[in-house]
Amino acid sequence: MNALVYHGPGEKSWDSVPTPTISKPTDAIVKMLKTTICGTDLHILKGDVPEVSSGRILGHEGVGIVEETGGAVSNFKKGDHVLISCITSCGKCEYCKRQMYSHCEDGGWILGHLIDGTQAEYVLIPQADNSLYPIPAGTDEEALVMLSDILPTGFEIGVLYGAVKPGDTVAIVGAGPVGMAALLTAQFFSPGRIIMIDIDESRLGLAMKFGATEVINSAKVDPAERIKASTKDGVDVAIEAVGIPQTFDVCQRIVRPGGHVANVGVHGKSVDFQIQTLWAQNITLTTGLVNTNTTAMLLKTVESKKLKPENLITHRFTFDQFLQAYEVFSNAEKEHALKVIISNA
Amino acid sequence: MNALVYHGPGEKSWDSVPTPTISKPTDAIVKMLKTTICGTDLHILKGDVPEVSSGRILGHEGVGIVEETGGAVSNFKKGDHVLISCITSCGKCEYCKRQMYSHCEDGGWILGHLIDGTQAEYVLIPQADNSLYPIPAGTDEEALVMLSDILPTGFEIGVLYGAVKPGDTVAIVGAGPVGMAALLTAQFFSPGRIIMIDIDESRLGLAMKFGATEVINSAKVDPAERIKASTKDGVDVAIEAVGIPQTFDVCQRIVRPGGHVANVGVHGKSVDFQIQTLWAQNITLTTGLVNTNTTAMLLKTVESKKLKPENLITHRFTFDQFLQAYEVFSNAEKEHALKVIISNA
Amino acid sequence: MNALVYHGPGEKSWDSVPTPTISKPTDAIVKMLKTTICGTDLHILKGDVPEVSSGRILGHEGVGIVEETGGAVSNFKKGDHVLISCITSCGKCEYCKRQMYSHCEDGGWILGHLIDGTQAEYVLIPQADNSLYPIPAGTDEEALVMLSDILPTGFEIGVLYGAVKPGDTVAIVGAGPVGMAALLTAQFFSPGRIIMIDIDESRLGLAMKFGATEVINSAKVDPAERIKASTKDGVDVAIEAVGIPQTFDVCQRIVRPGGHVANVGVHGKSVDFQIQTLWAQNITLTTGLVNTNTTAMLLKTVESKKLKPENLITHRFTFDQFLQAYEVFSNAEKEHALKVIISNA
Amino acid sequence: MNALVYHGPGEKSWDSVPTPTISKPTDAIVKMLKTTICGTDLHILKGDVPEVSSGRILGHEGVGIVEETGGAVSNFKKGDHVLISCITSCGKCEYCKRQMYSHCEDGGWILGHLIDGTQAEYVLIPQADNSLYPIPAGTDEEALVMLSDILPTGFEIGVLYGAVKPGDTVAIVGAGPVGMAALLTAQFFSPGRIIMIDIDESRLGLAMKFGATEVINSAKVDPAERIKASTKDGVDVAIEAVGIPQTFDVCQRIVRPGGHVANVGVHGKSVDFQIQTLWAQNITLTTGLVNTNTTAMLLKTVESKKLKPENLITHRFTFDQFLQAYEVFSNAEKEHALKVIISNA
Repeated sequence: MNALVYHGPGEKSWDSVPTPTISKPTDAIVKMLKTTICGTDLHILKGDVPEVSSGRILGHEGVGIVEETGGAVSNFKKGDHVLISCITSCGKCEYCKRQMYSHCEDGGWILGHLIDGTQAEYVLIPQADNSLYPIPAGTDEEALVMLSDILPTGFEIGVLYGAVKPGDTVAIVGAGPVGMAALLTAQFFSPGRIIMIDIDESRLGLAMKFGATEVINSAKVDPAERIKASTKDGVDVAIEAVGIPQTFDVCQRIVRPGGHVANVGVHGKSVDFQIQTLWAQNITLTTGLVNTNTTAMLLKTVESKKLKPENLITHRFTFDQFLQAYEVFSNAEKEHALKVIISNA
Repeated sequence: MNALVYHGPGEKSWDSVPTPTISKPTDAIVKMLKTTICGTDLHILKGDVPEVSSGRILGHEGVGIVEETGGAVSNFKKGDHVLISCITSCGKCEYCKRQMYSHCEDGGWILGHLIDGTQAEYVLIPQADNSLYPIPAGTDEEALVMLSDILPTGFEIGVLYGAVKPGDTVAIVGAGPVGMAALLTAQFFSPGRIIMIDIDESRLGLAMKFGATEVINSAKVDPAERIKASTKDGVDVAIEAVGIPQTFDVCQRIVRPGGHVANVGVHGKSVDFQIQTLWAQNITLTTGLVNTNTTAMLLKTVESKKLKPENLITHRFTFDQFLQAYEVFSNAEKEHALKVIISNA
Repeated sequence: MNALVYHGPGEKSWDSVPTPTISKPTDAIVKMLKTTICGTDLHILKGDVPEVSSGRILGHEGVGIVEETGGAVSNFKKGDHVLISCITSCGKCEYCKRQMYSHCEDGGWILGHLIDGTQAEYVLIPQADNSLYPIPAGTDEEALVMLSDILPTGFEIGVLYGAVKPGDTVAIVGAGPVGMAALLTAQFFSPGRIIMIDIDESRLGLAMKFGATEVINSAKVDPAERIKASTKDGVDVAIEAVGIPQTFDVCQRIVRPGGHVANVGVHGKSVDFQIQTLWAQNITLTTGLVNTNTTAMLLKTVESKKLKPENLITHRFTFDQFLQAYEVFSNAEKEHALKVIISNA
Repeated sequence: MNALVYHGPGEKSWDSVPTPTISKPTDAIVKMLKTTICGTDLHILKGDVPEVSSGRILGHEGVGIVEETGGAVSNFKKGDHVLISCITSCGKCEYCKRQMYSHCEDGGWILGHLIDGTQAEYVLIPQADNSLYPIPAGTDEEALVMLSDILPTGFEIGVLYGAVKPGDTVAIVGAGPVGMAALLTAQFFSPGRIIMIDIDESRLGLAMKFGATEVINSAKVDPAERIKASTKDGVDVAIEAVGIPQTFDVCQRIVRPGGHVANVGVHGKSVDFQIQTLWAQNITLTTGLVNTNTTAMLLKTVESKKLKPENLITHRFTFDQFLQAYEVFSNAEKEHALKVIISNA
């Protein structure tokens, strides 16, 4: 089969590689239909994720058709259309029993990281019963690729950890795919104001279409000053969706007493936490890798049209255009790209 | 001044009565601008609420202008436009400190019940600082009359106690004003399906306009059978908004394992609770009189247009037409009435 | 092997039966070390649980040693000492993912009910990875038999669903094994008063030893009157641990506004729910079959000596005395029996 | 009357000053019976709290007798024995309605800070109805001085924000009065292990008496290394009760995935937050100034003997020995002092 293979920092190619085969009774082989590229894949390619070894097939998102199942798989059978979770979960360790699948003792984020991933014609999914989801009949399968990672990430780590409530004022720092996912799913709880902050005017424009009530271009004005001027004493929820000290700092400056800072961004270095003022502000700060424990809930919201994940898709490619898809996604601002779909067609 | 006075079962009139005056330093006198009639007022008139004595001015909802305040009132001053909560709260008893204002030891539901109410040109509001809410500038004051009682009732006792979540299947039994209030506010949490059940086709039609995804006319089909056929194992949340054994019974028959029954209806007799089957179903059943502790939150949702209370208003009268307003509201089905507004104009 | 076999209403015997063998890759065979008898077993013997067929081995509690495991079992191996949960859970259905193992779509309460149980020399445990718990080294294994069912039942369905908090006044109606389990585990949350209600003076005496602060013999005084006289407005939490209309009625009469009624008792008929007064009391009523999702937590409290399950054991027998054990447990009041242990020695 | 007056950094004296008088109808004058000194008072004396002006009477803790009340005070009357909360709350602003009294718009921490405090023969308490608590008959009044500040601080900001649960492993960094308060109240929730960390052997010895299961002298060993070695993957809850970067750092190094860091310490400078590793650990970090919204709950636990605040008192003085009390408390380690009581006798 063909797959997108990482060959060390800066190096990738669309290679012919062996097709995976069932190894454990809990495994399934899935024929990929559609996948996408994540910002994390770009980080891996830069060499920022050293545990990814050369020769690894990348990718942790996508939908496909079950090709084969191990003897202990009972939820799925050959021919089933499935959504692949970016998180593998065994369903029987301490963390899985607490729904913290991201810390599964025999799983977690391993696809396209510690084992081969979904940017391939076929992928082996361990712990298939807990790591795949059946696609409801009649659903737009392409749109569901957004449910492998970014929508549960924005929802669980941004919106739920941030405890968004009706009438709240919410600020989201970063209008990339995950920030947009937080924007879409924050609306499940009917906040009064959603302020989107970014430096890319095109994305800010898109955010307004996706339901933001206000946008701030932080290249032009200090977002913290702007927000303080337009709120009584800050925002109820600040969602960090970038992952650098400057954006974290915006969040800690705008959160009101009793408010939440929900960090979603992947950080490469420590931040200066202003505890000398925040100690008395009764704030809650959360961090997290997605558990995908809300995937079933999100599927229901897609079925009921409360969530339209297809809005996040800006570009479409076929598998033989995989390198081109990377090229576009790597130049997201210039290309006005949010999420790209690559189809095995 | 003039006021709508209860003269014992079946008897009421629009009388000339003394204008109230400040009695305690925590009192305020409010000049009524707009009020409404509640189903509870009809119950009082039937003699179902014996603690209401003859001579009582009815009404516990409305908006007005502060006319005078006692010496300890600090949140309001003469001229302020205010929303009157149906619940009076002292803010300093054990229940108030737990936000259970309905059980305030020096308040609770007393307006138009144990003390004179809002269907009058002026009303005395005890504990004014905690029992009135400032009306945000630019808000439709008439619409806010819906926030005195029915919207917080539907939201707190139906939606919040029922724990409605994104993607849930919710059934609301009873499409009267409070059931409709639950319907409108359930949507704050993006349930996947909202099934409205009633015997009045006109109200069911309105429910579809207000966001119900399905309706069932329980005069024509057994709602429990219908729901069982269209769900895997029942509804996540059943909201009882009528107050009779038959409607309670529908709720206990349709709730799924792990689901919630939120009783909002005012009941006059006991019900037969099917605990011989429900003991093993891990359900939660809640009851409650509104606390109005979410009034500030609801005001924010009105300001952000997530909630449009004006949709509940079907008829409008002036104070000199008060008896006519009662006549229409008493014949709600025939008159296609939901909520009526009576204005002091 | 030998086992306690049900032969239809009123009939049981200690029979020689075939030893179970692995049937699915997720199965394990456990050699029983110690088991016990549950009130539910007595109900089955009375014919109250018609889905139990003649020839069924009874029992859903116990500890043992893993004898053999299927190919997909990864948490356990031959020789491991294990605690058997009364609830079988697959770990991968919708209910398991919500920790509602009692409603597992491929499990739930099936041991000694729909499949053969633990009152035998060997038992087949389906879904072994999720339905067994490793016994921590150095723990009193006999005491852990109490963790198969009654302690999680009292804790989850009584204490957690009842939301016991520090300083609360708690009433427990029924001082049988499950009521005592609620009494022991309610103390995890430091309530101020725990009032135990029963008609058996011996059990009430034991309750005082187990941490009750007061007892009421409901054969002598009306518990509701007594409690109303000694509290401001009732109890914060009323735990029903009997399962008849009279005891349910005590609970609904003593719960204070904002309080909880947690039904643990197994009921055979419906109850008259006083909603005509309770509708305005903002109460929460819960029901439930145990999920055993707290078993790991309870094991930690046993390890740290916060919980001493051995206190619940009053009698000990060996497997060849199984019918005698039933005789004693069936006459619990006369024999002053709470829980009996039967050992495979 | 006499009072302990701050005269600028480093300067204080026991002065004769005017007795306070009622100024607003919500005020009360309380004759002090017993007060204490807080670490915060020492910070003020060092000049670390610049908003405290010269001439200010210090102190925000104590018990006393109501001497006089304003016309709007209804919960208290002359002669009532009362506990003074360190937090003044109006009961009617947005924050008070959310039980966030620390951020009361007409209160918060003002006693001995922005208005005169309790280290005096008489003190004026604004918003008396919400800022005083009646002392239950028969209670040890001296012990209740611990409920003015440190016990609710340790409980609310350490234990409740930290979400301590039965069986948890809890680490408390800092065995001063507030750390000890967290230690005592953490036991309300029956954690399995409580590890106390400090550099003072005497205090660590006391911690063992107060219920710690283990202690670590961080002057001798690296507490993070020690804890990692004795836990699977860290602690469920880390409570910071010192307020310096090093102790915060211990907390962020020992918290397990899904765990809580509850900051109670008052910090003077920012900390280096290791978000580059913690972003994926699904942790919750909280901060907070005490709300004293649990004072009524804590009073119940004192009445039921679950909490014995008197254990925290090591030294006793009379008002004429006030400067000596400061001397001892300022040399807490040498004097083996935890909390000192100063009585108006």
